[in-house]
Amino acid sequence: MDKKIDDFYYMREAIKEAMKARNKEEIPVGCVVVKENKIIGRGHNLVESKNNPLKHAELIAIESAAKKINSWRLHGCTLYVTLEPCAMCSGALVYSRIDRLVFGAYDYKRGYCGSIENLPTRKELNHKVEILGGIMEEECLLIIQDFFKKLRMRNKGN
Amino acid sequence: MDKKIDDFYYMREAIKEAMKARNKEEIPVGCVVVKENKIIGRGHNLVESKNNPLKHAELIAIESAAKKINSWRLHGCTLYVTLEPCAMCSGALVYSRIDRLVFGAYDYKRGYCGSIENLPTRKELNHKVEILGGIMEEECLLIIQDFFKKLRMRNKGN
Repeated sequence: MDKKIDDFYYMREAIKEAMKARNKEEIPVGCVVVKENKIIGRGHNLVESKNNPLKHAELIAIESAAKKINSWRLHGCTLYVTLEPCAMCSGALVYSRIDRLVFGAYDYKRGYCGSIENLPTRKELNHKVEILGGIMEEECLLIIQDFFKKLRMRNKGN
Repeated sequence: MDKKIDDFYYMREAIKEAMKARNKEEIPVGCVVVKENKIIGRGHNLVESKNNPLKHAELIAIESAAKKINSWRLHGCTLYVTLEPCAMCSGALVYSRIDRLVFGAYDYKRGYCGSIENLPTRKELNHKVEILGGIMEEECLLIIQDFFKKLRMRNKGN
Protein backbone atom coordinates (compact mmCIF):
# COMPACT_ATOMS: atom_id res chain seq x y z
CA MET A 1 0.00 0.00 0.00
CA ASP A 2 1.21 3.48 -0.84
CA LYS A 3 2.60 5.12 2.31
CA LYS A 4 0.76 8.29 1.34
CA ILE A 5 -2.63 6.62 2.00
CA ASP A 6 -1.51 6.13 5.61
CA ASP A 7 -0.24 9.69 5.69
CA PHE A 8 -3.69 11.02 4.84
CA TYR A 9 -5.33 8.75 7.39
CA TYR A 10 -3.10 9.86 10.25
CA MET A 11 -3.26 13.51 9.23
CA ARG A 12 -7.02 13.29 9.62
CA GLU A 13 -6.39 12.06 13.16
CA ALA A 14 -4.09 15.04 13.76
CA ILE A 15 -6.87 17.31 12.44
CA LYS A 16 -9.29 15.76 14.96
CA GLU A 17 -6.82 16.82 17.66
CA ALA A 18 -6.61 20.33 16.18
CA MET A 19 -10.41 20.59 16.42
CA LYS A 20 -10.19 19.78 20.14
CA ALA A 21 -7.83 22.77 20.54
CA ARG A 22 -10.24 24.89 18.49
CA ASN A 23 -13.11 23.99 20.85
CA LYS A 24 -10.99 25.27 23.75
CA GLU A 25 -10.20 28.52 21.92
CA GLU A 26 -6.55 27.55 21.60
CA ILE A 27 -4.60 28.06 18.37
CA PRO A 28 -5.88 24.94 16.58
CA VAL A 29 -2.87 22.66 16.10
CA GLY A 30 -3.12 18.89 16.51
CA CYS A 31 -0.66 16.02 16.43
CA VAL A 32 -0.36 12.23 16.58
CA VAL A 33 2.70 9.97 16.87
CA VAL A 34 2.52 6.68 15.00
CA LYS A 35 4.62 3.54 15.39
CA GLU A 36 4.04 0.37 13.37
CA ASN A 37 0.65 1.62 12.18
CA LYS A 38 -0.56 2.37 15.69
CA ILE A 39 -1.16 5.77 17.27
CA ILE A 40 0.96 5.80 20.44
CA GLY A 41 0.69 9.50 21.27
CA ARG A 42 -1.81 12.31 20.72
CA GLY A 43 -1.78 15.99 21.56
CA HIS A 44 -3.35 19.35 20.84
CA ASN A 45 -2.21 22.83 21.71
CA LEU A 46 -2.95 23.71 25.36
CA VAL A 47 -0.65 26.69 26.01
CA GLU A 48 -3.44 29.00 27.22
CA SER A 49 -5.56 26.41 29.08
CA LYS A 50 -2.56 25.07 30.97
CA ASN A 51 -0.73 28.42 31.14
CA ASN A 52 2.37 26.55 30.07
CA PRO A 53 4.60 27.66 27.15
CA LEU A 54 5.65 24.04 26.51
CA LYS A 55 2.17 22.68 25.83
CA HIS A 56 2.45 22.72 22.04
CA ALA A 57 0.63 19.81 20.35
CA GLU A 58 3.90 18.14 19.31
CA LEU A 59 5.49 18.17 22.77
CA ILE A 60 2.34 16.73 24.36
CA ALA A 61 2.19 13.96 21.74
CA ILE A 62 5.93 13.17 22.07
CA GLU A 63 5.64 13.01 25.86
CA SER A 64 2.64 10.68 25.71
CA ALA A 65 4.33 8.46 23.10
CA ALA A 66 7.49 8.14 25.23
CA LYS A 67 5.33 7.22 28.22
CA LYS A 68 3.39 4.67 26.19
CA ILE A 69 6.45 2.77 24.95
CA ASN A 70 8.46 3.53 28.10
CA SER A 71 11.40 4.92 26.16
CA TRP A 72 12.56 8.43 25.38
CA ARG A 73 13.94 7.24 22.05
CA LEU A 74 11.11 7.28 19.53
CA HIS A 75 12.93 5.35 16.81
CA GLY A 76 10.61 4.02 14.12
CA CYS A 77 7.98 6.68 14.81
CA THR A 78 6.32 9.20 12.49
CA LEU A 79 4.90 12.43 13.89
CA TYR A 80 1.89 13.96 12.10
CA VAL A 81 1.05 17.58 12.86
CA THR A 82 -1.33 20.02 11.21
CA LEU A 83 1.14 22.94 11.23
CA GLU A 84 4.86 23.10 10.47
CA PRO A 85 6.69 22.80 13.82
CA CYS A 86 8.32 25.80 15.53
CA ALA A 87 11.96 25.88 16.64
CA MET A 88 11.27 24.28 20.01
CA CYS A 89 9.24 21.41 18.57
CA SER A 90 11.71 20.89 15.71
CA GLY A 91 14.44 20.47 18.30
CA ALA A 92 12.23 18.02 20.21
CA LEU A 93 11.84 15.91 17.04
CA VAL A 94 15.62 15.60 16.83
CA TYR A 95 16.19 14.88 20.54
CA SER A 96 13.41 12.29 20.70
CA ARG A 97 14.93 10.53 17.63
CA ILE A 98 11.70 10.62 15.64
CA ASP A 99 12.27 9.02 12.19
CA ARG A 100 9.81 10.97 10.11
CA LEU A 101 7.73 14.16 10.24
CA VAL A 102 4.60 14.77 8.16
CA PHE A 103 3.01 18.20 8.47
CA GLY A 104 0.01 19.96 6.94
CA ALA A 105 0.26 23.72 6.54
CA TYR A 106 3.53 25.59 6.18
CA ASP A 107 4.20 28.28 8.80
CA TYR A 108 6.16 30.80 6.77
CA LYS A 109 6.66 33.14 9.74
CA ARG A 110 8.08 30.76 12.33
CA GLY A 111 8.27 27.27 10.83
CA TYR A 112 11.57 25.54 11.48
CA CYS A 113 11.10 22.54 9.17
CA GLY A 114 11.58 24.24 5.81
CA SER A 115 10.21 27.78 6.08
CA ILE A 116 12.68 30.02 7.92
CA GLU A 117 15.03 27.12 8.75
CA ASN A 118 15.25 23.36 8.32
CA LEU A 119 16.46 22.28 11.73
CA PRO A 120 15.71 18.53 11.74
CA THR A 121 17.94 17.93 8.73
CA ARG A 122 20.97 19.98 9.86
CA LYS A 123 24.18 18.11 9.31
CA GLU A 124 25.67 19.21 12.65
CA LEU A 125 23.00 17.46 14.73
CA ASN A 126 23.35 13.77 15.60
CA HIS A 127 19.95 12.70 14.29
CA LYS A 128 18.17 13.51 11.05
CA VAL A 129 14.40 13.52 10.52
CA GLU A 130 12.82 12.77 7.13
CA ILE A 131 10.29 15.52 6.34
CA LEU A 132 7.15 15.64 4.21
CA GLY A 133 5.28 18.96 4.27
CA GLY A 134 1.99 20.09 2.72
CA ILE A 135 -0.21 17.01 3.31
CA MET A 136 -3.86 18.20 3.45
CA GLU A 137 -2.40 21.68 3.44
CA GLU A 138 -5.56 23.49 2.39
CA GLU A 139 -7.70 22.10 5.21
CA CYS A 140 -4.99 22.54 7.87
CA LEU A 141 -4.40 26.13 6.79
CA LEU A 142 -8.13 26.94 6.72
CA ILE A 143 -8.53 25.79 10.33
CA ILE A 144 -5.74 28.14 11.43
CA GLN A 145 -6.87 31.06 9.27
CA ASP A 146 -10.47 30.74 10.48
CA PHE A 147 -9.27 30.87 14.10
CA PHE A 148 -7.32 34.09 13.58
CA LYS A 149 -10.09 35.65 11.50
CA LYS A 150 -12.61 35.08 14.33
CA LEU A 151 -10.09 36.37 16.88
CA ARG A 152 -9.58 39.59 14.91
CA MET A 153 -13.34 40.08 14.50
CA ARG A 154 -13.89 39.55 18.22
CA ASN A 155 -11.11 41.97 19.16
CA LYS A 156 -12.57 44.52 16.75
CA GLY A 157 -15.94 44.14 18.45
CA ASN A 158 -14.51 44.99 21.86
CA MET B 1 25.38 46.39 42.47
CA ASP B 2 27.01 44.94 39.39
CA LYS B 3 24.58 42.56 37.67
CA LYS B 4 27.46 40.13 37.22
CA ILE B 5 27.61 39.49 40.98
CA ASP B 6 24.03 38.24 40.76
CA ASP B 7 24.94 36.21 37.69
CA PHE B 8 27.61 34.32 39.61
CA TYR B 9 25.27 33.77 42.55
CA TYR B 10 22.51 32.27 40.42
CA MET B 11 24.92 30.24 38.32
CA ARG B 12 26.07 28.58 41.54
CA GLU B 13 22.43 27.67 42.15
CA ALA B 14 22.25 26.20 38.63
CA ILE B 15 25.41 24.20 39.42
CA LYS B 16 23.72 22.82 42.55
CA GLU B 17 20.96 21.57 40.25
CA ALA B 18 23.54 20.04 37.89
CA MET B 19 25.01 18.12 40.84
CA LYS B 20 21.58 16.63 41.55
CA ALA B 21 21.53 15.30 37.97
CA ARG B 22 25.08 13.97 38.46
CA ASN B 23 23.98 12.05 41.56
CA LYS B 24 21.28 10.37 39.46
CA GLU B 25 23.80 9.47 36.73
CA GLU B 26 22.15 11.87 34.31
CA ILE B 27 24.17 14.20 32.06
CA PRO B 28 24.85 16.89 34.70
CA VAL B 29 23.05 20.01 33.53
CA GLY B 30 21.22 22.32 35.95
CA CYS B 31 19.07 25.40 35.60
CA VAL B 32 17.25 28.11 37.56
CA VAL B 33 14.81 30.80 36.43
CA VAL B 34 15.02 34.13 38.25
CA LYS B 35 12.52 36.98 38.40
CA GLU B 36 13.07 40.12 40.48
CA ASN B 37 15.93 38.51 42.38
CA LYS B 38 13.94 35.46 43.31
CA ILE B 39 14.31 31.91 42.02
CA ILE B 40 10.90 30.95 40.64
CA GLY B 41 11.89 27.76 38.81
CA ARG B 42 14.53 25.06 39.15
CA GLY B 43 15.38 22.01 37.10
CA HIS B 44 18.01 19.40 36.36
CA ASN B 45 18.29 16.94 33.52
CA LEU B 46 16.03 13.91 34.04
CA VAL B 47 15.79 12.40 30.53
CA GLU B 48 16.92 8.91 31.59
CA SER B 49 15.22 8.77 35.02
CA LYS B 50 11.89 9.88 33.58
CA ASN B 51 12.39 8.19 30.19
CA ASN B 52 11.20 11.41 28.64
CA PRO B 53 13.10 13.24 25.87
CA LEU B 54 11.68 16.60 27.03
CA LYS B 55 13.10 16.49 30.55
CA HIS B 56 16.06 18.78 29.87
CA ALA B 57 16.96 21.03 32.81
CA GLU B 58 15.75 24.17 31.02
CA LEU B 59 12.30 22.81 30.11
CA ILE B 60 11.71 21.59 33.67
CA ALA B 61 12.75 24.98 35.08
CA ILE B 62 10.61 26.91 32.56
CA GLU B 63 7.58 24.73 33.33
CA SER B 64 7.98 25.18 37.08
CA ALA B 65 8.46 28.95 36.70
CA ALA B 66 5.30 29.27 34.57
CA LYS B 67 3.39 27.29 37.19
CA LYS B 68 4.78 29.45 39.99
CA ILE B 69 3.73 32.77 38.46
CA ASN B 70 0.65 31.28 36.78
CA SER B 71 1.59 32.64 33.37
CA TRP B 72 3.20 31.09 30.31
CA ARG B 73 4.83 34.42 29.50
CA LEU B 74 8.06 34.68 31.48
CA HIS B 75 8.70 38.36 30.80
CA GLY B 76 11.28 39.88 33.14
CA CYS B 77 12.92 36.51 33.80
CA THR B 78 16.53 35.39 33.44
CA LEU B 79 17.34 31.73 32.88
CA TYR B 80 20.67 30.42 34.22
CA VAL B 81 21.93 27.09 32.91
CA THR B 82 25.27 25.33 33.24
CA LEU B 83 25.46 24.32 29.55
CA GLU B 84 24.59 26.19 26.37
CA PRO B 85 21.00 25.24 25.44
CA CYS B 86 20.20 22.82 22.61
CA ALA B 87 17.83 23.64 19.73
CA MET B 88 14.72 22.53 21.59
CA CYS B 89 15.52 24.52 24.74
CA SER B 90 16.60 27.57 22.71
CA GLY B 91 13.19 27.51 21.05
CA ALA B 92 11.54 27.21 24.47
CA LEU B 93 13.39 30.35 25.63
CA VAL B 94 11.85 32.27 22.74
CA TYR B 95 8.32 30.87 23.10
CA SER B 96 8.26 31.45 26.86
CA ARG B 97 9.38 35.09 26.29
CA ILE B 98 12.36 34.82 28.63
CA ASP B 99 14.25 38.16 28.70
CA ARG B 100 17.77 36.99 29.32
CA LEU B 101 19.86 33.81 29.18
CA VAL B 102 23.09 33.26 31.12
CA PHE B 103 24.92 30.01 30.46
CA GLY B 104 28.14 28.40 31.70
CA ALA B 105 29.94 26.10 29.28
CA TYR B 106 29.65 26.35 25.52
CA ASP B 107 28.40 23.24 23.72
CA TYR B 108 30.28 23.47 20.45
CA LYS B 109 28.64 20.33 19.04
CA ARG B 110 24.97 21.09 19.56
CA GLY B 111 24.65 24.49 21.25
CA TYR B 112 22.02 26.70 19.66
CA CYS B 113 22.84 29.92 21.50
CA GLY B 114 26.06 30.88 19.75
CA SER B 115 27.90 27.67 18.83
CA ILE B 116 26.31 26.07 15.77
CA GLU B 117 23.47 28.60 15.62
CA ASN B 118 22.16 31.57 17.58
CA LEU B 119 18.45 30.87 17.62
CA PRO B 120 17.17 33.20 20.39
CA THR B 121 18.44 36.29 18.58
CA ARG B 122 17.12 35.46 15.10
CA LYS B 123 15.46 38.44 13.50
CA GLU B 124 12.58 36.36 12.04
CA LEU B 125 11.28 35.27 15.45
CA ASN B 126 8.89 37.51 17.38
CA HIS B 127 10.91 37.61 20.60
CA LYS B 128 14.62 38.15 21.21
CA VAL B 129 16.60 36.86 24.18
CA GLU B 130 19.68 38.69 25.51
CA ILE B 131 22.52 36.17 25.88
CA LEU B 132 25.60 36.01 28.11
CA GLY B 133 27.71 32.86 27.71
CA GLY B 134 30.79 31.57 29.54
CA ILE B 135 29.94 32.47 33.17
CA MET B 136 31.81 30.02 35.45
CA GLU B 137 32.69 28.21 32.27
CA GLU B 138 35.60 26.21 33.65
CA GLU B 139 33.60 24.67 36.50
CA CYS B 140 30.53 23.97 34.36
CA LEU B 141 32.67 22.31 31.71
CA LEU B 142 34.59 20.22 34.24
CA ILE B 143 31.35 18.78 35.63
CA ILE B 144 30.30 17.66 32.16
CA GLN B 145 33.73 16.39 31.14
CA ASP B 146 34.10 14.43 34.37
CA PHE B 147 30.74 12.75 33.74
CA PHE B 148 31.69 11.59 30.25
CA LYS B 149 35.18 10.53 31.37
CA LYS B 150 33.68 8.26 34.04
CA LEU B 151 31.13 6.93 31.56
CA ARG B 152 33.86 6.04 29.08
CA MET B 153 35.93 4.35 31.78
CA ARG B 154 32.91 2.34 32.94
CA ASN B 155 32.05 1.27 29.40
CA LYS B 156 35.68 0.27 28.87
CA GLY B 157 35.53 -1.85 32.02
CA ASN B 158 32.50 -3.79 30.76
